[in-house]
Amino acid sequence: MKKFLPCLLLIVPGLRAAAQTAPENLVQYVKPIIGTQRMGHTYPGATVPFGMVQLSPDTDTLPYEMNGKYNKDVYKYCAGYQYDDKTIVGFSHTHFSGTGHSDLGDFLVMPTVGELKLNPGQAHQPRSGFRSSFSHSNELAEAGYYKVRLDDYNITAELTATNRVGFHQYSFPKSDQSHIILDLMYGIYNYDDKNTWTFVRIENDTLVTGYRQTNGWGRTRTVYFAMAFSKPFYQYGNKKFDKSQVYRGFWGKFDQTKNFPEFAGKQIRAYFDFKTEEGEKIMIKFALSSVSTDGALRNLRAEAPGWDFNQVKKQAQDQWNKELNRVVVQSGSRDEKENFYTSVYHSFLSPITYTDADGQYRGLDQNIHQADGFTNYTIFSLWDTYRALHPLFNVLQPKRNADMVQSMMAHYDQSVHHMLPVWSHYANENWCMIGYHSVSVIADAVIKGNAGFDASKALDACVTSARNGWFEGLNHYMKLGYVPEDKSGSSVSKTLEYAYDDWCIAQMAKKLGRNDVYEEFIHRSAYWKNVYDASIGYMRPKMSDGTFRKEFDVLSTHNQGFIEGNAWNYSLYVPHAPTEMIEMMGGKKPFTAHLDSLFTMHLPDKYFAETEDITRDGIIGNYVHGNEPSHHVPYLYNWTDQPWKTQERVRMILKKQFRPTPDGLGGNDDCGQMSAWYIFTALGFYPVAPGSDEYAIGSPSVDGASIQLENGKMFTIEVKNNSDKNVYVQHLTLNGKPLNRLFLKHEEILNGGTLGFVMGPKPAKK
Amino acid sequence: MKKFLPCLLLIVPGLRAAAQTAPENLVQYVKPIIGTQRMGHTYPGATVPFGMVQLSPDTDTLPYEMNGKYNKDVYKYCAGYQYDDKTIVGFSHTHFSGTGHSDLGDFLVMPTVGELKLNPGQAHQPRSGFRSSFSHSNELAEAGYYKVRLDDYNITAELTATNRVGFHQYSFPKSDQSHIILDLMYGIYNYDDKNTWTFVRIENDTLVTGYRQTNGWGRTRTVYFAMAFSKPFYQYGNKKFDKSQVYRGFWGKFDQTKNFPEFAGKQIRAYFDFKTEEGEKIMIKFALSSVSTDGALRNLRAEAPGWDFNQVKKQAQDQWNKELNRVVVQSGSRDEKENFYTSVYHSFLSPITYTDADGQYRGLDQNIHQADGFTNYTIFSLWDTYRALHPLFNVLQPKRNADMVQSMMAHYDQSVHHMLPVWSHYANENWCMIGYHSVSVIADAVIKGNAGFDASKALDACVTSARNGWFEGLNHYMKLGYVPEDKSGSSVSKTLEYAYDDWCIAQMAKKLGRNDVYEEFIHRSAYWKNVYDASIGYMRPKMSDGTFRKEFDVLSTHNQGFIEGNAWNYSLYVPHAPTEMIEMMGGKKPFTAHLDSLFTMHLPDKYFAETEDITRDGIIGNYVHGNEPSHHVPYLYNWTDQPWKTQERVRMILKKQFRPTPDGLGGNDDCGQMSAWYIFTALGFYPVAPGSDEYAIGSPSVDGASIQLENGKMFTIEVKNNSDKNVYVQHLTLNGKPLNRLFLKHEEILNGGTLGFVMGPKPAKK
Repeated sequence: MKKFLPCLLLIVPGLRAAAQTAPENLVQYVKPIIGTQRMGHTYPGATVPFGMVQLSPDTDTLPYEMNGKYNKDVYKYCAGYQYDDKTIVGFSHTHFSGTGHSDLGDFLVMPTVGELKLNPGQAHQPRSGFRSSFSHSNELAEAGYYKVRLDDYNITAELTATNRVGFHQYSFPKSDQSHIILDLMYGIYNYDDKNTWTFVRIENDTLVTGYRQTNGWGRTRTVYFAMAFSKPFYQYGNKKFDKSQVYRGFWGKFDQTKNFPEFAGKQIRAYFDFKTEEGEKIMIKFALSSVSTDGALRNLRAEAPGWDFNQVKKQAQDQWNKELNRVVVQSGSRDEKENFYTSVYHSFLSPITYTDADGQYRGLDQNIHQADGFTNYTIFSLWDTYRALHPLFNVLQPKRNADMVQSMMAHYDQSVHHMLPVWSHYANENWCMIGYHSVSVIADAVIKGNAGFDASKALDACVTSARNGWFEGLNHYMKLGYVPEDKSGSSVSKTLEYAYDDWCIAQMAKKLGRNDVYEEFIHRSAYWKNVYDASIGYMRPKMSDGTFRKEFDVLSTHNQGFIEGNAWNYSLYVPHAPTEMIEMMGGKKPFTAHLDSLFTMHLPDKYFAETEDITRDGIIGNYVHGNEPSHHVPYLYNWTDQPWKTQERVRMILKKQFRPTPDGLGGNDDCGQMSAWYIFTALGFYPVAPGSDEYAIGSPSVDGASIQLENGKMFTIEVKNNSDKNVYVQHLTLNGKPLNRLFLKHEEILNGGTLGFVMGPKPAKK
Repeated sequence: MKKFLPCLLLIVPGLRAAAQTAPENLVQYVKPIIGTQRMGHTYPGATVPFGMVQLSPDTDTLPYEMNGKYNKDVYKYCAGYQYDDKTIVGFSHTHFSGTGHSDLGDFLVMPTVGELKLNPGQAHQPRSGFRSSFSHSNELAEAGYYKVRLDDYNITAELTATNRVGFHQYSFPKSDQSHIILDLMYGIYNYDDKNTWTFVRIENDTLVTGYRQTNGWGRTRTVYFAMAFSKPFYQYGNKKFDKSQVYRGFWGKFDQTKNFPEFAGKQIRAYFDFKTEEGEKIMIKFALSSVSTDGALRNLRAEAPGWDFNQVKKQAQDQWNKELNRVVVQSGSRDEKENFYTSVYHSFLSPITYTDADGQYRGLDQNIHQADGFTNYTIFSLWDTYRALHPLFNVLQPKRNADMVQSMMAHYDQSVHHMLPVWSHYANENWCMIGYHSVSVIADAVIKGNAGFDASKALDACVTSARNGWFEGLNHYMKLGYVPEDKSGSSVSKTLEYAYDDWCIAQMAKKLGRNDVYEEFIHRSAYWKNVYDASIGYMRPKMSDGTFRKEFDVLSTHNQGFIEGNAWNYSLYVPHAPTEMIEMMGGKKPFTAHLDSLFTMHLPDKYFAETEDITRDGIIGNYVHGNEPSHHVPYLYNWTDQPWKTQERVRMILKKQFRPTPDGLGGNDDCGQMSAWYIFTALGFYPVAPGSDEYAIGSPSVDGASIQLENGKMFTIEVKNNSDKNVYVQHLTLNGKPLNRLFLKHEEILNGGTLGFVMGPKPAKK
């Protein structure tokens, strides 16, 4: 019977939507354009969930350095696209989502007509290069699909993708001079000097292969490609922009700029020429691989054998719909649905797939490995994502999260530093930010029973990483009980985060019965106390002689012993021991007042100016939501006598910090961490301390939700009397029985059932 | 019984030499130092037959370009070593033998003591850098073994090798500051700009891995390594000499110059520090791979599991002895034995092995391939080696030659140009010189019954290559019957060589019963006639309008339509049709006089100055032995009525052009072509037209020879009454019966038997 089903569907497609098993169309609520203006650093292009390819328009081409100085503007282009720009330079195949550092932008493709231009030109000089003006009125960005009209050429560009293949469709005007440019110089940041090498082979008149090697954030990074055209080009060529090319020798024998099928260099742009009829569509399938051009070709054949753009688009959107349906929310507000599902979309973008279709991938040692029984992932922005994104995966994507842990373990096995990843980046470790937060991700998975990996071996890797004396002040930390500021910068942030990470290791050790490890790390987990200056009530940088540093400004983020946060915010970072922290800070009552002041005080402009990665909107009082160290802070009221203030604050933050507009994100989405915060918070609970099995109860903004668990069970959230004013939880029930505590346990989710909220306009002060 | 034999040998090793099966010790006659002075361009270091590693001292570090201009001196260093130099900069792992173009020199290792210097310094400024003075009196170069004392450091360096592993042994003085430098910047030519990227990982305190990527003659070339130390280094570090390094970002977090186990850049030198006792030996095993660092490690483990330097040296020399014993000559002159066996040594250096121990290799498409049933080779300098080296392999190394053809076929399969190799160079095609002489190598193997490959497929590859219109004037050649000088330079050389190659294809097609191919190419093989100018009696450049070019100088090699030869010499290049050529040039008698004048005329100095690749000694009259196009010329007398002049000339050339001294080679050895000419000629016969099954009879210089064929048979050459004066063949017998012709057939060799020469002081003019 199954065999005939597709046939039936073809005949009476209308039946499908009506079928009970059909997932709700949630793709309609995804707006990839959210966050593309200002600081969100998201991209609007086409990708599938956790896809290797992120095919997206790029709107400028700025160098990382100009005249030897860091070019500040490059920061805007972390995702290649800025909503305010008026021109598109092309469509490249790899993009970070929401990072605070730029890279990628591999293999820019641009269709043009008329005179061949091989320079992108300047945004302020129309038609000075191959870039084209466009307008948002002719632009459509959906999950898995992007469309734009390139006004200078009267070309409509459409993009979709499979996991490893970007699929382009360009509708040309009639022209004898239609071109498709493949720009191998382009990269996100560092337009001129980042390539170490690029190589291209014209295999035949519809197939091109090659690779790009870059230095930079990933110090030795290689991406391979296979590019197939739906129509043969009738001629092709390339131009080199290398400042120096040392060896010319025998190359002079042939004209290598035109119809010579192999070229290489640091700075190359290639072009392919066509004659097109009015409206003629030329399609490109552009496959990536971390392994080889053979790998890219295998990926291409495995995932995109045909030339039906609409079918590939449908597959991409079906995939999205399936993933989005893992959590279905009720809300009377379309804005809220757009916020919610776009957050789910953003949180399902990275880490990205980093195995070829056959399971091969490039390891940290630059050798080719075979992923044995797991999908290997890369792009682990762990300082961000350990907080809420990986905990979210333990609810919505446990299988993938276990594979991510296996990817971390592979990274560890291949590391000459004997370290779990800090920031895993295309077979590179870019060492961005601080801490060894892989241990949090691993502990959270182990504690929550999602250990589809060798937990004992993983614990050993955690311990080895956490004992690695050469790593950023760790030798001092282990000896002195804190990182001394005169030995290693951002010392307080490091001390606090190491202590939390150590607690994670202890939790895992306890569960695995490894008492010696537990003792060692539970002891270290209290080291946060060593940087608390009781005389002022804040964490404060301490010197190796045991004295606190004299110069100190609790509002400044500049050189005060912290990173991406000031002492005021960061002093609240003891997620694994809030009770003790509050006690140390004077007890519940003064702490509550202290916390209140965070949200209500005025942060002078001079401090905002030095706050990274966020817009002015990303700050509420002195509470910085646009950066991560405060993400758990609004939930700390749960450990005071005024938990209803958590409910109030989180609803306020949801409202202020997330809007379904291009400028709707107050700070970097940070590979989905910001979005994961939104999702948890909107659902009414949050993992204050990953590595614990408890979630702090907040205040759901949605009117209800159903989480379809991978174990087949359903966890439902019912919310009664919810409204913008009714943000206070009046009653809480679990499976119909009163729940008289401020936390939810992970197994209560896993068991399926119903969490019931009754909301009201006033705090339930009991 | 066999089991106990090694044991017996250990007890009474003296017995071994006496055993009948023991091969003669021929290694004693190999002098790798021959050709290291001036133009021979050979290297003195350690390698095994056709070995991937050529571990050899390098004596200078010159850039390819200086101030934007080609640096002429770099040419001297094609093999890295010049005998007249007084300093050694280190020992690198890859070297061409005898080429007229420089490249390679991967991974220079240098031991030093005292203050750490990471700059090589200047040859004329003692102790200005890490280079050391040395003297030839403390130097020993044998087949598979090299030893030198580094005077500045009182270090004795010894080198040996397996196929894929260079084995170093350094005897240090007592020092607290002993260093081993790994210079990744060094390369033969282009010291500064050739690297596109290098990468190093300190796996542990005795193992280092990494790779080097270069641009240049091979435009995208990668070599991987694994470097194992016999003693742990106690610290290590690196210094970067990159002119620009774009991205520093998070790298500032750690000190990456010292004890940081991963580094990368364009220009890096690393060092490893030891404390040594007087005379303490530190050994290094340095494995290469074209595949990956994993591949290099596998090669290391497969070939050099232990740390016994002397055992590895013995294995290397045993291998050489085995290969040298394929042809054993009798001679009363030690000089002649040294010339002969060093020629055999030089002719067994390249092509080099280009598969890992497990059969994987990097293909021309830069993908990793598995060699199925053959060893893949690279370094095919085919314009040189098709003449005598590959024909020599069809006698002495048929199995390897068949594998070389398979390597060419793999190259063809991987070529986007759909071309058999012109100059195959580490997974690159460097397009050096002219012609498509792979077809000659393939045809010679097929005609001589050495087709351990798919001959029909190989013929198709030959035909496709020969019909490739874009290749250097081939479209014009196919249309007009010659390459017009105004369309493609060196047009006469091309026309003559294409015609010969076409004849090769025709011979193969005939044997394989492919008549259509035969007809097409036998027709093309006569195109040499189209560039003969009867009015002057020379081949002459013709324009596309059918007229001969007016400006013409038969003695000049400059821009006259020829390459590496003048019109005088090159006009004699019709190896496949000497009879017709002689007829066209006026018949036997005038041709003989013409040929005589070649050897007796005086070439004015101005013409010598423009003759490439050879010393003054490399020229006899106007006969240029130091370049290849004339190599068959002395044998052309066999097609006149005065064949005894061939006998006279070749003996004279053997004597003048080959001496067992550093300056003993009159021109580049050219990957063994010059040596192969020597071997054939010394044995008394020569393959004038590879692709034919006939050898022209000359005059053997040896007193006898036994060729041990791979088919198990023995072909013996007996020479009676030979002497420096008795250079004329009086009688010739084959297996005791008179041989009344001037050629020997290949199957007569294959059948085994005896070729008998009786020599005398006067020509046998009959």
